[in-house]
Amino acid sequence: MDKVRVGVIGLGMGYSHSRSLAEGRIKGAQLTAVCDMQQQKQDMAKAELPQDVKIWGDARKMMSSGEIDAVIIATPHYDHPKEAIFAFQQGLHVLIEKPAGVYTKQVREMNEAAQDSGKVFSIMYNQRCNPLYQKLRELIADGELGEIRRMNYIVTEWYRSQSYYDSGGWRATWAGEGGGVLVNQSPHQLDLWQWVTGMMPKRMRAFCSFGKYRNIEVEDDVTAYAEYENGATAVFITTTGEAPGTTRFEVTGTRGKIVLENDKLSFSRLRVPEPEFNKNFEGKFGQPECWKCEVPITGENTQHDGILQNFTDAILHGTPLIAPGEEGIHGLTLSNSMHLSTWLDDWVELPIDEDLYYEKLQEVIQHSTYQKTVRDTGPEVDMSKSFV
Amino acid sequence: MDKVRVGVIGLGMGYSHSRSLAEGRIKGAQLTAVCDMQQQKQDMAKAELPQDVKIWGDARKMMSSGEIDAVIIATPHYDHPKEAIFAFQQGLHVLIEKPAGVYTKQVREMNEAAQDSGKVFSIMYNQRCNPLYQKLRELIADGELGEIRRMNYIVTEWYRSQSYYDSGGWRATWAGEGGGVLVNQSPHQLDLWQWVTGMMPKRMRAFCSFGKYRNIEVEDDVTAYAEYENGATAVFITTTGEAPGTTRFEVTGTRGKIVLENDKLSFSRLRVPEPEFNKNFEGKFGQPECWKCEVPITGENTQHDGILQNFTDAILHGTPLIAPGEEGIHGLTLSNSMHLSTWLDDWVELPIDEDLYYEKLQEVIQHSTYQKTVRDTGPEVDMSKSFV
Repeated sequence: MDKVRVGVIGLGMGYSHSRSLAEGRIKGAQLTAVCDMQQQKQDMAKAELPQDVKIWGDARKMMSSGEIDAVIIATPHYDHPKEAIFAFQQGLHVLIEKPAGVYTKQVREMNEAAQDSGKVFSIMYNQRCNPLYQKLRELIADGELGEIRRMNYIVTEWYRSQSYYDSGGWRATWAGEGGGVLVNQSPHQLDLWQWVTGMMPKRMRAFCSFGKYRNIEVEDDVTAYAEYENGATAVFITTTGEAPGTTRFEVTGTRGKIVLENDKLSFSRLRVPEPEFNKNFEGKFGQPECWKCEVPITGENTQHDGILQNFTDAILHGTPLIAPGEEGIHGLTLSNSMHLSTWLDDWVELPIDEDLYYEKLQEVIQHSTYQKTVRDTGPEVDMSKSFV
Repeated sequence: MDKVRVGVIGLGMGYSHSRSLAEGRIKGAQLTAVCDMQQQKQDMAKAELPQDVKIWGDARKMMSSGEIDAVIIATPHYDHPKEAIFAFQQGLHVLIEKPAGVYTKQVREMNEAAQDSGKVFSIMYNQRCNPLYQKLRELIADGELGEIRRMNYIVTEWYRSQSYYDSGGWRATWAGEGGGVLVNQSPHQLDLWQWVTGMMPKRMRAFCSFGKYRNIEVEDDVTAYAEYENGATAVFITTTGEAPGTTRFEVTGTRGKIVLENDKLSFSRLRVPEPEFNKNFEGKFGQPECWKCEVPITGENTQHDGILQNFTDAILHGTPLIAPGEEGIHGLTLSNSMHLSTWLDDWVELPIDEDLYYEKLQEVIQHSTYQKTVRDTGPEVDMSKSFV
């Protein structure tokens, strides 16, 4: 194979991926087909995409057509696993949009199908292409920060107005999305949190508020507290109700502190590890010598195109994936554990009880009394700009 | 009265207050007497303080001598309330060191005694003299931030080595101090938190770790989550185990966000309140216009001398107190609620059940198996430098 024939399902988020492909920005990949159930989206694709791109209304027909080698699944969250499983069965390589799904039970099945198929499986965690987070990850993996002790991650730059929520019937409903800010806006940061640190909590105590700032039934404000096997603790905060928001990730370790904020990485590095200083210090008041280090950040943030290119390269050349699809379950586990802890008003141990989560999710769906009023809030805008 | 005759009890922290008075830095106040049970401290005072300062070994005798009008109580925390109550009974004005006491039950009794006496009662919350926090308080009180929605207060600049803890038998024990970082190092910030915002939580869920970083029995690492009547939430984090630490206070409201960090105040101000924007906005993606405002901060941080001067002025001229002693109970309520929530591994409602707290405190004291090794860690250092 010297060219990967790609099909795209779902022309919301998927449309900007289609254009990247159609414009030839992804070396080795060719947009062959797109699919959307809505006639309006099909018409848009027909008018704007190259003539040789085949337009489908039925995803399964497109996937089994034999006309594509790989598929990008950008459907509503609930459908990612089942579409992906079908794709693997057709022998297709698969790139899914985030989140991996809505509950880990279904995502685990998708991961198994991927494993069985032997095909390339990736997830659109485009923020993994950000050199800042890559550098943070590298520093931590290399032990430059020592053992991690505490994290404080504030992710509040996801402002959404009522007008946004009113623009789609599926938006911000348990049945339609399976959650709020945790499943729609913050999956990137839920991924980065554990990806850059290489750590998953052993238990979680979270406090989700449902419809606090907007007329919605899902969470729009979350504070979560996590504890790790090594004694480290973390706080993760996210909301769609605040303006202006904050993106600030503070990670402390035995070798100092790193703060990621305003697109900068500040490394305060201890000359000797804190435990060593503590062991030898005899002066009552005093603390380890600390250096403010300027760490060079190189490379550009290739975002969605970076993931598309990497996915293509993995298919053609066996290049290691930046965002293996199987890893989507980690961020989702974090978000599921936050819901579950709130519903139980108690600690939850990780990995969570997947059946219990599924059961509780069905309960909130069934007991939903929420009546959605969908309003026309103007033309579709470029979604890619809203998904940093 | 044209000169307040002041006595000081406890020549640890109290020694630097004594010197401020002896050096004539506090207008209208005169250091007349000091008291410490330790002969070594008395000898130091005799050698270094003016000859006309009388040196006592028995606080009660000094307080009932008729030779002082006001007393500064800088004894171990447990003793603040009982010494203060005795002082009020002698008709003395009282300034206590922080914290107000160890448990709110005893502090409430002290507050009642103060009330009954009609004397001036203040507490050494010297950080209330910091123009940054004064400005933040003024902005919030004037409604410039709108209604408060979220706070994130990281207070980790209290590094303490094992050598520090080993320097005193009472340090970091339940019987000696009644707590760790929450009662010794962070009371200033527990005060500022509610003083600048004018808000106390309605419930608290806290996670204290006891002896996590040091060989001590009390808490040296805390993450607390608080909820308020108006729906606002807050996270408060403190530890003595991290270096370099962070002091960062983020407060968001319906009119924007203020961040206090690195001795600077950053105000991101919304042109219209967020709820108003949300009500009128029809564009799906978009957020309120935000201005970065440079807010002038004037005045100097007068610290301990500021409180000493204000206390003296209140006695002589009826000047309103910067830190009324009765307000010490608020910060202590926060710290007590964090202990209690951890011990119960559950929510606690505020105001807390004072009898339950007292009972649980007695339990940890009685069940203590901690054996302290006190080491000579060099000469006494100037404590004032360690208590920012």
